[in-house]
Amino acid sequence: MSGSFVCGFDVGGTKLLALAFDPEDPARWRIERRGPTPRTADDLVKTIVTTIGELHDEAERTKACTHLHAVGLGIAGLVDRGGTLRFGPNLPGIVDTPLAERLVAELEVPVDVENDATAAAWAEHRLGAGMGIDEMLLITLGTGIGAGIVSGGHLVLGRHGFAGEAGHMIVDPSGPLCPCGQRGCWERYASGSGLGRLAREAAEAGRLHNVVEEVGGDPDDVRGEELTVAARAGDREALAVFDTFAWWAALGFANLTNLLDVEAIVIGGGLVSAADLLLEPMRVAYEKLLYASDRRAPARLIPAELGEESGAVGAGLLAVERL
Amino acid sequence: MSGSFVCGFDVGGTKLLALAFDPEDPARWRIERRGPTPRTADDLVKTIVTTIGELHDEAERTKACTHLHAVGLGIAGLVDRGGTLRFGPNLPGIVDTPLAERLVAELEVPVDVENDATAAAWAEHRLGAGMGIDEMLLITLGTGIGAGIVSGGHLVLGRHGFAGEAGHMIVDPSGPLCPCGQRGCWERYASGSGLGRLAREAAEAGRLHNVVEEVGGDPDDVRGEELTVAARAGDREALAVFDTFAWWAALGFANLTNLLDVEAIVIGGGLVSAADLLLEPMRVAYEKLLYASDRRAPARLIPAELGEESGAVGAGLLAVERL
Repeated sequence: MSGSFVCGFDVGGTKLLALAFDPEDPARWRIERRGPTPRTADDLVKTIVTTIGELHDEAERTKACTHLHAVGLGIAGLVDRGGTLRFGPNLPGIVDTPLAERLVAELEVPVDVENDATAAAWAEHRLGAGMGIDEMLLITLGTGIGAGIVSGGHLVLGRHGFAGEAGHMIVDPSGPLCPCGQRGCWERYASGSGLGRLAREAAEAGRLHNVVEEVGGDPDDVRGEELTVAARAGDREALAVFDTFAWWAALGFANLTNLLDVEAIVIGGGLVSAADLLLEPMRVAYEKLLYASDRRAPARLIPAELGEESGAVGAGLLAVERL
Repeated sequence: MSGSFVCGFDVGGTKLLALAFDPEDPARWRIERRGPTPRTADDLVKTIVTTIGELHDEAERTKACTHLHAVGLGIAGLVDRGGTLRFGPNLPGIVDTPLAERLVAELEVPVDVENDATAAAWAEHRLGAGMGIDEMLLITLGTGIGAGIVSGGHLVLGRHGFAGEAGHMIVDPSGPLCPCGQRGCWERYASGSGLGRLAREAAEAGRLHNVVEEVGGDPDDVRGEELTVAARAGDREALAVFDTFAWWAALGFANLTNLLDVEAIVIGGGLVSAADLLLEPMRVAYEKLLYASDRRAPARLIPAELGEESGAVGAGLLAVERL
């Protein structure tokens, strides 16, 4: 397939990332474009078409690649097997548009649309931290929680393609309300917003003196960022909040391992930047929470390797592999 | 394969069920044997060998089947891919025995050992309520909760073969202690023992007058059986306990659907006998608890069809299919 390339897009709630690369050797070169995610389906289609034109020009000029093989999109939300976003709280203007169909009509190349975490899981499985691991999960700890499942070396997609909504696993039915309408969803605890909530809870209970002082005295102003800075500086109260956070993350990891018996849980998303503070307490709590943990090897908890490019890379790979 | 047959065993915590049948046409005839589960590995191996001898004689005499094709065992607990029970709280005398290996040596036919719920899931998928459904779960609501997962038409086994421990999904970390050492495992609520616990809780809180009177006045004596009788007779307080139970069961079903996006959840185990009381409140609660339930078809909740034979049938089928 020399001379040909693929385009992968990660369509996030606020940011759009586009990559062109050679699917036969994705590490050799990548061309990227970034921008805000357009708010309407029409604008998204236009932006994607324009961006592909730019990537095509540059691929031709700098890599002697003239043939666009396929286009893949990873989108935050429930994407059905026909390539339509059926539910996406952060992308209301794009829901229910047959994106795959419209892009095929415009671009005249095969287009594949997938959930962003599923695409990222595939990228980590094929090229990243999960390479060679046929039973694995990717869990993205970002604003929310996303998940992609690999079983027997294949993606678990489910009937509609909606598998992987681990963030809405209810882990405490009397817990805080989730925007989804339920109480105590896992992502109320173990996501970036969960960390902020746990931090503010600790602050309001008088258990984060230094951090509250740092932000000017109002517990409501405490964010994950300030907490992280304090924890890295060795602030005990901040570290205790990270331990609580790690415990909740580990509880979900244990539930998922009980169900799927994976070999590795690859942890991606923004919170990976705090892996130095999180991984060890997560591992300790996880091994305590796992069923029959003295009779089995626990899953390895490992940081993702492809960073924020994983969704776009995975979407591009899937688009080619599904041809 | 006419003239040949397979033997499937369901090795439960207290009862052993053995079946001989034609794997090409499992519905045509079945020969069965029942007995208590032997307490040691040696006795179990002896019993299985003797039972197979009896089944063989009868199959030959009555069905003109002379060739034993393979033997399958379904066992309650964590069974590894080599056919050894690694963890089984109800079968301490059998844990860590290489059962498959020992039986192959004795019987000189292929032997396959699998978790009982996984085997039952396969039977329901191939011959029962899940026939033709490639994305399905079997959940057995018995003394505990077992689960088997079918994705893309294949069993999800996991790295060691331990997938499906849905009963130990933690759904309420401040909930009642589970014998496994954790708090608030799903099976503390949605199993037969969970129903008994919910009933006694209601009784102690004075919310089960008639049932408590029926058992002689001590709330501690209330069991699922008396509750079921009262609920069938229309006792409102008993029905309210069933509603609570159904809600907890539905919470787990919603978590599992969010994760796996199955088309059907086949419900087996002893509590299926109360399906008339449970299915409707389960469905109502499940649709409320499912993520984005207004944007998707919820999974169908359907009773298992193969009854208590499913584990033995599935184990036999898997033994043949894995040859």
